[in-house]
Amino acid sequence: MLINCVAYQDGKKLADLSVEDISNYVGRPDCFVWVALRDATDDELATMQHEFGLHDLAIEDARHGHQRPKVEEYGDTLFAVMHTVELSATDELRAGEVSVFVGRNFVLSVRNRSHQSLLGVRARAEREPHLLRHGAGFVFYAIMDAVVDRYFPIIDAMETELESIEDQIFVRGSARTNIEHLYELKRRIMLVKHAVTPLMESVSKLWSGRVPLVCEGSREYFRDVYDHLMRINATLDTLRDTIGTAIQVNLSMVTIEESETTKQLAAWAGIFAVATAFAGIWGMNFEHMPELKWKYGYPMALGMITLTCVLLYRRFKRVGWL
Amino acid sequence: MLINCVAYQDGKKLADLSVEDISNYVGRPDCFVWVALRDATDDELATMQHEFGLHDLAIEDARHGHQRPKVEEYGDTLFAVMHTVELSATDELRAGEVSVFVGRNFVLSVRNRSHQSLLGVRARAEREPHLLRHGAGFVFYAIMDAVVDRYFPIIDAMETELESIEDQIFVRGSARTNIEHLYELKRRIMLVKHAVTPLMESVSKLWSGRVPLVCEGSREYFRDVYDHLMRINATLDTLRDTIGTAIQVNLSMVTIEESETTKQLAAWAGIFAVATAFAGIWGMNFEHMPELKWKYGYPMALGMITLTCVLLYRRFKRVGWL
Amino acid sequence: MLINCVAYQDGKKLADLSVEDISNYVGRPDCFVWVALRDATDDELATMQHEFGLHDLAIEDARHGHQRPKVEEYGDTLFAVMHTVELSATDELRAGEVSVFVGRNFVLSVRNRSHQSLLGVRARAEREPHLLRHGAGFVFYAIMDAVVDRYFPIIDAMETELESIEDQIFVRGSARTNIEHLYELKRRIMLVKHAVTPLMESVSKLWSGRVPLVCEGSREYFRDVYDHLMRINATLDTLRDTIGTAIQVNLSMVTIEESETTKQLAAWAGIFAVATAFAGIWGMNFEHMPELKWKYGYPMALGMITLTCVLLYRRFKRVGWL
Amino acid sequence: MLINCVAYQDGKKLADLSVEDISNYVGRPDCFVWVALRDATDDELATMQHEFGLHDLAIEDARHGHQRPKVEEYGDTLFAVMHTVELSATDELRAGEVSVFVGRNFVLSVRNRSHQSLLGVRARAEREPHLLRHGAGFVFYAIMDAVVDRYFPIIDAMETELESIEDQIFVRGSARTNIEHLYELKRRIMLVKHAVTPLMESVSKLWSGRVPLVCEGSREYFRDVYDHLMRINATLDTLRDTIGTAIQVNLSMVTIEESETTKQLAAWAGIFAVATAFAGIWGMNFEHMPELKWKYGYPMALGMITLTCVLLYRRFKRVGWL
Amino acid sequence: MLINCVAYQDGKKLADLSVEDISNYVGRPDCFVWVALRDATDDELATMQHEFGLHDLAIEDARHGHQRPKVEEYGDTLFAVMHTVELSATDELRAGEVSVFVGRNFVLSVRNRSHQSLLGVRARAEREPHLLRHGAGFVFYAIMDAVVDRYFPIIDAMETELESIEDQIFVRGSARTNIEHLYELKRRIMLVKHAVTPLMESVSKLWSGRVPLVCEGSREYFRDVYDHLMRINATLDTLRDTIGTAIQVNLSMVTIEESETTKQLAAWAGIFAVATAFAGIWGMNFEHMPELKWKYGYPMALGMITLTCVLLYRRFKRVGWL
Repeated sequence: MLINCVAYQDGKKLADLSVEDISNYVGRPDCFVWVALRDATDDELATMQHEFGLHDLAIEDARHGHQRPKVEEYGDTLFAVMHTVELSATDELRAGEVSVFVGRNFVLSVRNRSHQSLLGVRARAEREPHLLRHGAGFVFYAIMDAVVDRYFPIIDAMETELESIEDQIFVRGSARTNIEHLYELKRRIMLVKHAVTPLMESVSKLWSGRVPLVCEGSREYFRDVYDHLMRINATLDTLRDTIGTAIQVNLSMVTIEESETTKQLAAWAGIFAVATAFAGIWGMNFEHMPELKWKYGYPMALGMITLTCVLLYRRFKRVGWL
Repeated sequence: MLINCVAYQDGKKLADLSVEDISNYVGRPDCFVWVALRDATDDELATMQHEFGLHDLAIEDARHGHQRPKVEEYGDTLFAVMHTVELSATDELRAGEVSVFVGRNFVLSVRNRSHQSLLGVRARAEREPHLLRHGAGFVFYAIMDAVVDRYFPIIDAMETELESIEDQIFVRGSARTNIEHLYELKRRIMLVKHAVTPLMESVSKLWSGRVPLVCEGSREYFRDVYDHLMRINATLDTLRDTIGTAIQVNLSMVTIEESETTKQLAAWAGIFAVATAFAGIWGMNFEHMPELKWKYGYPMALGMITLTCVLLYRRFKRVGWL
Repeated sequence: MLINCVAYQDGKKLADLSVEDISNYVGRPDCFVWVALRDATDDELATMQHEFGLHDLAIEDARHGHQRPKVEEYGDTLFAVMHTVELSATDELRAGEVSVFVGRNFVLSVRNRSHQSLLGVRARAEREPHLLRHGAGFVFYAIMDAVVDRYFPIIDAMETELESIEDQIFVRGSARTNIEHLYELKRRIMLVKHAVTPLMESVSKLWSGRVPLVCEGSREYFRDVYDHLMRINATLDTLRDTIGTAIQVNLSMVTIEESETTKQLAAWAGIFAVATAFAGIWGMNFEHMPELKWKYGYPMALGMITLTCVLLYRRFKRVGWL
Repeated sequence: MLINCVAYQDGKKLADLSVEDISNYVGRPDCFVWVALRDATDDELATMQHEFGLHDLAIEDARHGHQRPKVEEYGDTLFAVMHTVELSATDELRAGEVSVFVGRNFVLSVRNRSHQSLLGVRARAEREPHLLRHGAGFVFYAIMDAVVDRYFPIIDAMETELESIEDQIFVRGSARTNIEHLYELKRRIMLVKHAVTPLMESVSKLWSGRVPLVCEGSREYFRDVYDHLMRINATLDTLRDTIGTAIQVNLSMVTIEESETTKQLAAWAGIFAVATAFAGIWGMNFEHMPELKWKYGYPMALGMITLTCVLLYRRFKRVGWL
Repeated sequence: MLINCVAYQDGKKLADLSVEDISNYVGRPDCFVWVALRDATDDELATMQHEFGLHDLAIEDARHGHQRPKVEEYGDTLFAVMHTVELSATDELRAGEVSVFVGRNFVLSVRNRSHQSLLGVRARAEREPHLLRHGAGFVFYAIMDAVVDRYFPIIDAMETELESIEDQIFVRGSARTNIEHLYELKRRIMLVKHAVTPLMESVSKLWSGRVPLVCEGSREYFRDVYDHLMRINATLDTLRDTIGTAIQVNLSMVTIEESETTKQLAAWAGIFAVATAFAGIWGMNFEHMPELKWKYGYPMALGMITLTCVLLYRRFKRVGWL
């Protein structure tokens, strides 16, 4: 579906174009065309391929989706794939894709399986004509910056969640829930990491060393995006590492708790075993058991049993088993 | 066994050749010969070595098989080894090998221990003469692309399997089965990884930096294959990492379950120990135990035992041991 | 808030400046201006941006904070972000930020969320005019050196803490406390690591290979800072590694202790089970149980029970279960 | 001990030499001398050093042994150390050493602490004069190839052993044996890895980039050796990784088994505790316990006890505890 | 403290110098001065700095100590820090430091917190004038070689210790001691690793690529030191890896032992529970229990109990629980 298609000159909007008009503008040396598609059909992609002279392999990637994030050069044209990550209504992470084709005087973005509009990018760019004047490379930066900025709230949410798990990790009896949450969180971190790490590697080629011509004027902007990606990536690595440690620590806590339970079990079993042994002894049927005849034999027996149990109880209490 | 042997000119099929005719065509500057062998005999390999001037070491590798995937240059000739991975009838993973020799005007593929035919590759290539015109390098790409594309369903199956294990991982009593499946899955992942990682490293030399002459015109196609391999490799790494975590989590779950069992054991042992201790006390043979003479002594005793047990039961229930 | 703003010439203080005077001095080829801000407002940053011609992206980073440590070149100007790490009154680690802009003849430092003054840096620099003569690059070094020097006591405190945990790690019953401390310590190490590692990587570009012009004369000084960062980083890595091992060892100790407890439990349970079994047997109601009639039947029974228990006790003692 | 000492010209054997004759042949531009020593004495090494002009440090390394595998250039002479790995009569791995000195027209091999003869290498080389014609570099390749080829059966044996351990890993009661075998296997893998990895790194310098003059003509052969080493190294890494996982899995299996034992223990303890509690209650000495007077009181009691135990047994059976 | 101060010419000792004479000799193009200090005072360092024109930062490092091992160039002068590692009288590892300044015609070594004299280095060097002729670079090598050679016995001792722990690792009941030793050994390995790894990285710059002028003539000697460091480093890595595995294996052994204990506990508990249950049943007070009246009721009961226990015992024995 075509979202919009606009020609820009010198940082200012020239005209809303229909698809047919593109060829009239794309040839002019001083202006560029910015087309946005969403869940593009094969026909739309074919038209665009024809208009902008795009490479077969890149079009195929944009059509099929499910690519790794990447930035590739096909002659003078750049082809970039980025992953969008968004929380669905049911609070699950969902990955979408934005493919961007960038030439000397055109930008074509194709958004797939993503609910987040990129309209804000265009609006903001149009409000800053002194930046938009940099041309297609700057638009490319603006789209990428928008995609990357949307990773931050996701990361923040994951950090908050990890912290709330950490608050539970030394609480007795929460081990099962903790481990389920940690495992689920790790799964989500991997999903975001797949969006971030390959993009980071690709973006590094847009500002250091030999830079594609179209990005030359926006080097410092791409370095800024790179810096954001580095930060996100470092945070993800720390999250992963912390989850690993948390899983280990959680296992330790379970073992410690079990050890404490075993000790309690041992203590109570001991106390009752002693009581039962005493009772068993006085329950024997020997004829000559003088204490059985004593007037206060029974209270004495009860007293002895109770006393022994209390002594044991206090001893276990002292060594921390109870 | 010779599968087929065809000469191509300008992207179109020229003629089916017998082995003897090869030398007539291989010398012509504007055409190339594409030979496909399967489980080649020493004689066939010797003939081919003679026809195309192949290096001893490469022929030896093709004959013995069991090589790592690789792409090597012998002068102007490329020698590549790729692993095929396929599910056997009994659902086991089996690795085969495809060796490819590529020269300026010939391609020789030798398929070993693999049931999957490469005939489809030739058919598709012949349907696209504008691409086949690129020559031997493009045919090389087409074969490699076919081999790599067949990794995807294998990977998908392994991802599905891991997900189905993950669904079981927090289910009580499934630990033994889970760990067996995880271990087995890891073994299979390693097998595929051995096919993918070395190939990926080798392919990178076919599109970046100095590229062998025969692949020069198909750089972007090899980059595409490289990209697929990168994607597969990243997926394999994630699978491995996830299996590692799953094994750890599974161990935690076992320990948690054991801890819960120990608590239940402790609770019931406690309840019955108390009952037994009471019964033991009233089973003592003291002469003066007034309650034994009471009319309602027995119901009272039963009542006390029951009451104590119920109180204990509710207490254990409250702290979550039962 | 403006802390101070001074012009230097030839290593000596020329004059305290008001913000308006800056432009008069910053143009002179032989002197440089050193401005220090703290928790700068947007207005102050805007003024500075105007005075020194700073890049939008750098100013934005300095305004928002929460950047990774880094050193970036914007044309001839360097922009550096460093993290300060300090212990709060309640003994918690807190991270602040120092942003530094360095040009051929100016240094602008902006300190955020940090209680530690950098005034000492200026005082020391003014006492060493032969070094201050090196200009803005040397001032940059001096600030960085001060920030990095303040990591050392933090690291030392963490090493001391780890050692005190290690003293507890083989002590019975301390597992729960140890694991909590280890986890907390690891969290703090990660925080410092985030300050150190990216800075280390950035600083390496200030002394090896192509070095920004403004730092050229102070190469050896930046190498010295780099060396300190390497040392801190190596210490942090060792701490992390040791904590990982300590967590593992702690888990082992818990398991060993549980194993010892289980053995004790088994031993005592055995002893009392034997006593109870004996008593149970002589409590049976068979008519013909000759020993029940014996005069010394009861003492004999008690003796046998005691003897068996003592023998068992000694046996368990010998195999180390008690 | 001198094994043999032969001069070759144009790929063919010229003459068996005595040590004194070496200097007559080593100077001739078109021939080379191949000397093989075994457990060389200091005198022999001194003679050889004099004959071929070898460096002090290299001779010292060859004398003392216990070096890491390496390939070093001393001027035009190459000095290589390789480890041989062989199974002793008692099935233990033993490491020996082969030191090789290679010059433009000589090869000197010194074998230490190794039972495997290198005579086969010379025999095979003499059967292929068209290859031997390549000179000293090719002889160097042939020796290295022989050493590396002997790693394969060792690796295969270790793979077979790991597989046989894997067959035991999910078998109850085999945990102790498994872990001992795994630990022992890992130790042996490390020993072979120490032979392989450093050699691999060194060999890479014999075929890629700037190559020592003497190996220039045999580049493709050294690449072949390199390829073998890569394959061995990858296999060793997989073995190591698999052992790590197997140790983890083994621990899981022990814990699972313990958990199952605990459940069985809990179940039987429960059943007997119930029986004992019932018996205890009817063993109390209250005067008014009507059921004690019933004619079928005893069978009823036995029936109730049995019934309860059977019900419990079936319940435990159903939940999988028994 | 000044140990000694000697001028050399052409590999031979010229004269013992007092500190004042240094300047007379250090200027001569064909001779060099070798000064050795121990636990140098600030004054001594200041004098040396003046005599040899040393850099402030290097002097500060030598004064404060506690640096990472490193080799730094200050103009034409090299500054190196190495760690000495020695066993104290109480068998503890202690780290000291040797700082070396090397110029075209001087060597200054400063030894701190180390009991091992470097006098032997000078003595050996003076016995080999043909080597000492290489000048200051060779002396630098000789000192470094001496420091590195002293790592070997430390490493050997640690390997021996690990082996003796490994002998204990599968022995029952030694888990606690093992884990303490492993942890302690790991701590010591880290200490040596801190001495070795950074030095290795620094030394690599003394023989490969661009080499400082003063070391140019001794390249092969520094490569030899590098090789030793590589070997030590590889050994340390293997030790670390093995300790990691040993800790894991030790944990497994504890768990296996616990599992065995649990089984024994379960078996004996089962046997006695059966005996007690039988006794309890015949201890019930029903009036109509015919077997109680039998003449051989009691022996029969004892027999049945014994028989059941023996059967159980044999069954448990057979499944390996006892």
